[in-house]
Amino acid sequence: MSTQAKVKKDKEIIAEYESQVKEIRNQLVEQFRCLEQQSESRLQLLQDLQDFFRRKAELQLEFSRGLDKLAERYSSKIRTSREHQHFKKDQNLLSTINCWYLVLDQTRRESRDHATLSDIYNNNVIVRLTHVGDDVLRLFKKSKDIGVQMHEELVKVTTELYTVMKTYHMYHTESISAEGKLKEAEKQEEKHIGKANDISAALLRYGHDERPQRRSSVKKMEKMKEKRQAKYFENKLKCTKARNDYLLNLAATNALVAKYYIHDVSDMIDCCDMGYHASLTRTLRTYLSAEYSLETSRHEGLDVLEGAVDAMDVRGDKHKFMDMHSQMFCPPTRFDYQPHMGDEVCQVSAQQPVQTELLMRYQQLQTRLATLKIENEEVRKTLDATMQTLQDMLTVEDFDVSDAFQHSQSTESVKSASSDSYMSKINISKRRANQQETEGFYFTKYKEYLNGSNLIVKLQAKHDLLKQTLGEGERAEYGTTRTLGSPYQWWLRVVSDTSIFTVFNSKVYFEFRDPKWKSTTLKMHLKEVKIRWSTINRIMTSTLWPAY
Amino acid sequence: MSTQAKVKKDKEIIAEYESQVKEIRNQLVEQFRCLEQQSESRLQLLQDLQDFFRRKAELQLEFSRGLDKLAERYSSKIRTSREHQHFKKDQNLLSTINCWYLVLDQTRRESRDHATLSDIYNNNVIVRLTHVGDDVLRLFKKSKDIGVQMHEELVKVTTELYTVMKTYHMYHTESISAEGKLKEAEKQEEKHIGKANDISAALLRYGHDERPQRRSSVKKMEKMKEKRQAKYFENKLKCTKARNDYLLNLAATNALVAKYYIHDVSDMIDCCDMGYHASLTRTLRTYLSAEYSLETSRHEGLDVLEGAVDAMDVRGDKHKFMDMHSQMFCPPTRFDYQPHMGDEVCQVSAQQPVQTELLMRYQQLQTRLATLKIENEEVRKTLDATMQTLQDMLTVEDFDVSDAFQHSQSTESVKSASSDSYMSKINISKRRANQQETEGFYFTKYKEYLNGSNLIVKLQAKHDLLKQTLGEGERAEYGTTRTLGSPYQWWLRVVSDTSIFTVFNSKVYFEFRDPKWKSTTLKMHLKEVKIRWSTINRIMTSTLWPAY
Repeated sequence: MSTQAKVKKDKEIIAEYESQVKEIRNQLVEQFRCLEQQSESRLQLLQDLQDFFRRKAELQLEFSRGLDKLAERYSSKIRTSREHQHFKKDQNLLSTINCWYLVLDQTRRESRDHATLSDIYNNNVIVRLTHVGDDVLRLFKKSKDIGVQMHEELVKVTTELYTVMKTYHMYHTESISAEGKLKEAEKQEEKHIGKANDISAALLRYGHDERPQRRSSVKKMEKMKEKRQAKYFENKLKCTKARNDYLLNLAATNALVAKYYIHDVSDMIDCCDMGYHASLTRTLRTYLSAEYSLETSRHEGLDVLEGAVDAMDVRGDKHKFMDMHSQMFCPPTRFDYQPHMGDEVCQVSAQQPVQTELLMRYQQLQTRLATLKIENEEVRKTLDATMQTLQDMLTVEDFDVSDAFQHSQSTESVKSASSDSYMSKINISKRRANQQETEGFYFTKYKEYLNGSNLIVKLQAKHDLLKQTLGEGERAEYGTTRTLGSPYQWWLRVVSDTSIFTVFNSKVYFEFRDPKWKSTTLKMHLKEVKIRWSTINRIMTSTLWPAY
Repeated sequence: MSTQAKVKKDKEIIAEYESQVKEIRNQLVEQFRCLEQQSESRLQLLQDLQDFFRRKAELQLEFSRGLDKLAERYSSKIRTSREHQHFKKDQNLLSTINCWYLVLDQTRRESRDHATLSDIYNNNVIVRLTHVGDDVLRLFKKSKDIGVQMHEELVKVTTELYTVMKTYHMYHTESISAEGKLKEAEKQEEKHIGKANDISAALLRYGHDERPQRRSSVKKMEKMKEKRQAKYFENKLKCTKARNDYLLNLAATNALVAKYYIHDVSDMIDCCDMGYHASLTRTLRTYLSAEYSLETSRHEGLDVLEGAVDAMDVRGDKHKFMDMHSQMFCPPTRFDYQPHMGDEVCQVSAQQPVQTELLMRYQQLQTRLATLKIENEEVRKTLDATMQTLQDMLTVEDFDVSDAFQHSQSTESVKSASSDSYMSKINISKRRANQQETEGFYFTKYKEYLNGSNLIVKLQAKHDLLKQTLGEGERAEYGTTRTLGSPYQWWLRVVSDTSIFTVFNSKVYFEFRDPKWKSTTLKMHLKEVKIRWSTINRIMTSTLWPAY
C-alpha cells in the first residue's frame, strides 16, 4: 500500500509540475504589478508634492505681495513727510522713529524672502520633482525590461526541465517495459527449462527421441532473452542518462530560481529605485535650504530691529528734539540792571541806614531757606521713590509670548495668545489703573516740589546777593558787574566744578550770554568735545540741585 | 557824549524790558507748540503702528488659512487612502512618505504659528499701542498743566521785577529832583555867602548898617538848604531801598529764568516722555518675542523634517515594500526530484558506462566556468564603476539656495533664484543628458552581466552536482536527498559562514523551505534578532556573489 502511494504516474507529476510553474508565473506577474503600483504611487506622491509646492508658492507670493504693499504704503507716507520736515538722513532721526523704519525694513525683507521662496518652489523644487517623476517612469520601464529578460530565462529553464523530465519519463517507461519483457522471457525460459528437465527425465526413463526439436526451442528462447536483455540494458542506460539530465537540469533550475528570488528580483527593485531616494532627498534639501535661509534672513533682520529697540534712547531723543528746536529752548538774555538816568550806583547798597535792615533780612532769609530746603528735600525723596515705582511699572518684562508658540506633541492645540494671563483684560486694567494712580501722585508731588524749588531759587539768589554785599568785600574784583551775572556765574561755577569745564571755554560762555547766540554754534562746540545736553543736565542735577 | 548815551530814560528801559519779556513769552508759547507737535507726531506714529499691525495681522491670518487649507487638502486625501491601504501606523510607513507627512505637518505648524502671530498682533501689540497712545495724550495734558504753572511763575516774577523797577525809577527821579533842588539851594547859598562877603567887606570899608536884614536872609537860606538836604537824603534812602529791591528782584528773576531754562523745561519734557520709550520698547519686544518664537517653532519643525530627510532609507523602504508584498517575493517551493513510477534511483548515476562521459562533461564545465567567471567579473567591474558614477551624479550637493536670500546692504536687490547657475536650464539639461546616458550604459552592462551570471549559476549547479557524484562519496550522509537541496544548502552555507547564522535556526530554515511559509512568521524571527532583508542581502552580495 505504502509503495503504491509513492508510485506517481506521469500525469500526476506533470500536473504537480505545472501547478508549481503556474504559481511561479503568477508570482512573476504579481511582482510586476507590485513594482508598477509602487511606481504609480511614487508618481502620485511626486504629483502631490508638485501641486503642493505650486500652491504653496502661490500662497508665498500672495503673502509677499501683501507685505510689500503694506511696507510701501507707509514708506511712501514717510518719504512725503520726510521731504516736508527736511529730515536730515539719520542725523536727527529719533530712536523711536528708527525702530519704525526698521519694522518696515523687516517687512520689506520678509516680502522679498517669501517671493524668493516662491521662486525657488516654482523654478527649482517643482522642476526637480518633474525630473524625479520622469526618472521613476523611465526606470520602471527599463527595470521591467530587465525583469522580462529574467522571467524569460526562468520560463526557458522550466520548459527545459519539463522536456528532460518528459524524456526521463519516456525512457523510464520504456526501461520498465523492457525490464518487464526481459523478466517475462526469463520466466518463460525458466518454465521451459523446468519442462525440459521433466522431459529429459522422462526421456531418460522411456528413452524417447524428441531432443533435436526441443533443443531448437531452448535456443530460440535464449536468443529472445538475450535480445530482451540487450533491449533492457539499452533502455536502462537511456533512462539513466535521461534521469541524470533531469537531475542536473533540476539542480540548474532550482539554482536559477533561487538566484532570481534572492538576487535578481532584488536587483530589479534596485534598478527601479535607482536615484529615487537620492533625488527626492536633494529636492527636499533644496526646500529645507530655502526655508532655513529665509529663517536666517528673518533672524538677521529681527536682530537689527532688536538692536534698534535696545538702542531706544529717551535722553538722546530729548536732546535731538531740543536741538531741532534750539531757538525755543535756548536760554534768553539775562535781565540786566538798568541804571536809571545815569544812576552811578550799580550794586546793592549796604551802608547805613539800610545796613541793619539788610542784615536782618539776610538772617531771616537764611532761616527761611534752611526750613524750606529740608521740607523740599522730603518732597524730593517721595518724588524719587514714586518715580522709581513708576519706572518699575513701565519697564516690567511682560513681553515674552513664546509660550503661545509651544506645540504640544500629543495634541495639536495651541494656547490662545489672547486668553493668556500675560494680556488678560483684568490684569491689564488693574495694572493700568495702578500706573495712572501712581502717575497722578507723582504729578501732585512734582507740583509741590516745583513750588518749593521756585521759592528756594528766588530766596537763594537774594540771600547770596545779600551775603556778598554784607561780606567783607573780599570779592571786590567783581566790580560793578558782580550782581548781574549771578545765575549764569552760578551755572558756570557748577560746570567748572565738573570735569567737563574745558568745554565751556570763554567763547562758548560768552556766546551763551549773547542774545544772538545760535544753537548751531554751541552744537559745534559741543560736538567737538562730544558732549550732550543730557550729560550737562545730569551733571547739573547731581551736583547743583541737592545744594538747595 | 558818552555819558549822554549811557543815560537811559524810563521809556527806553521799559521798552527794552518789555521786548525782553515778550521774547520770553514767545518762547514759552513756542515750547508748548513744540511739545504738542511732538505728542501729535507720537500719536501719529502709534496710529500708523496700530494700522500696520492690524493689516499685518490680516495678512498673517490669510496666510495661515491658506496654509491650513493646503495642508488639510492633502491630509484628508492621505486619510482616505490610508484607510484603503490599511496602513499600519508608522510600522510600514515608507521613509519617503514619512517626509511628505512631515512637510504637511510643517505646513500645519506654520499655519498655526502665523495664526498665533496674528492673534498676538491683534490682542497684545495693538492693545499696547492703544495704551501708549492714551498715555502720550494724558501725559501731554498733565505736563502742559505743569508748564502753565511754571510759566505763571515766570510771569509773576517778571511782573514783580517791572514793579520794583518802576518804583526805583520813581524814587530815583525824585532823588535826582531833590538833589537838584538841594544843589540849587546850595548854589544860592554860596552865591549869597559870596555876595554877603562882598557886602561885609564893603560894610567894613564904609561902615554900612544893613547886617540884620542880611542875617535873616542867610538864616532863611540855610533853613531851605537844610530842608532840601533832608528831602534829598530821604529820597536818596528811598531810592537806595528801591534800587536794592530792584537788584535783589533782578537776581531772583534771573535765577528763576535760569532754573526754568536749565531744569524746569527739561523736567516738563521728561514728564511728557514719561514711559513712552519704555512702553514702546515693551510693545516692540512683544512683537520681537512673537517673531522670534515663530522662528524657533519653524526651526524645530524644519529640524524634524531634516531628520526625516536624513533618515530616508532606500534599503529600509525596499524591505518594507517586499515585506508588504511578502507572498509575491517569497521564494517558491523547490522543484523536487519526482521518481517516475517508483523509480528507486534518486541521484545522478555515475556508474559505467556513463561515468567517463560525466567526467568529461564535468571537466568541460569546469573549464567553461573558469572562462565565464573571468569574463563576467570584468563586466561586474564596469558595472560597479558605472554605478559609482551614477551615484555621484545622483548625490551631488546642489541644493544650497542660501545665496538667493542674501540681502546686499547697499542695494535692495535680491538675486533671482531661477536665473542662478545652480538651476540654469543649460546646466540641468546637460546634467540630465549625462545622467541618462550613464544610466543607459549601466542597463546595457547589467543585461550582459545578468546573462553571464544566469549561465554561470546554471552551469555551477550542474558542476557542483557532478563534482559530488564523481567524488569519493565522502558526503554519503546526504543520502537520497543529497542532490535536491543544493541551492538552498548553498544559501544556508553562505548564511552559516556569516555571524548572523544564529538567526537561521532550523525552524526558520525549514519554514523557508515550507511552501506554507508566511512572511509574518519569518518577520517575527527576524525581528527577534533585529535583522533585515537588506542586511542579509548585503552579506550575500559581499560574500557569495564575487565567488562566481
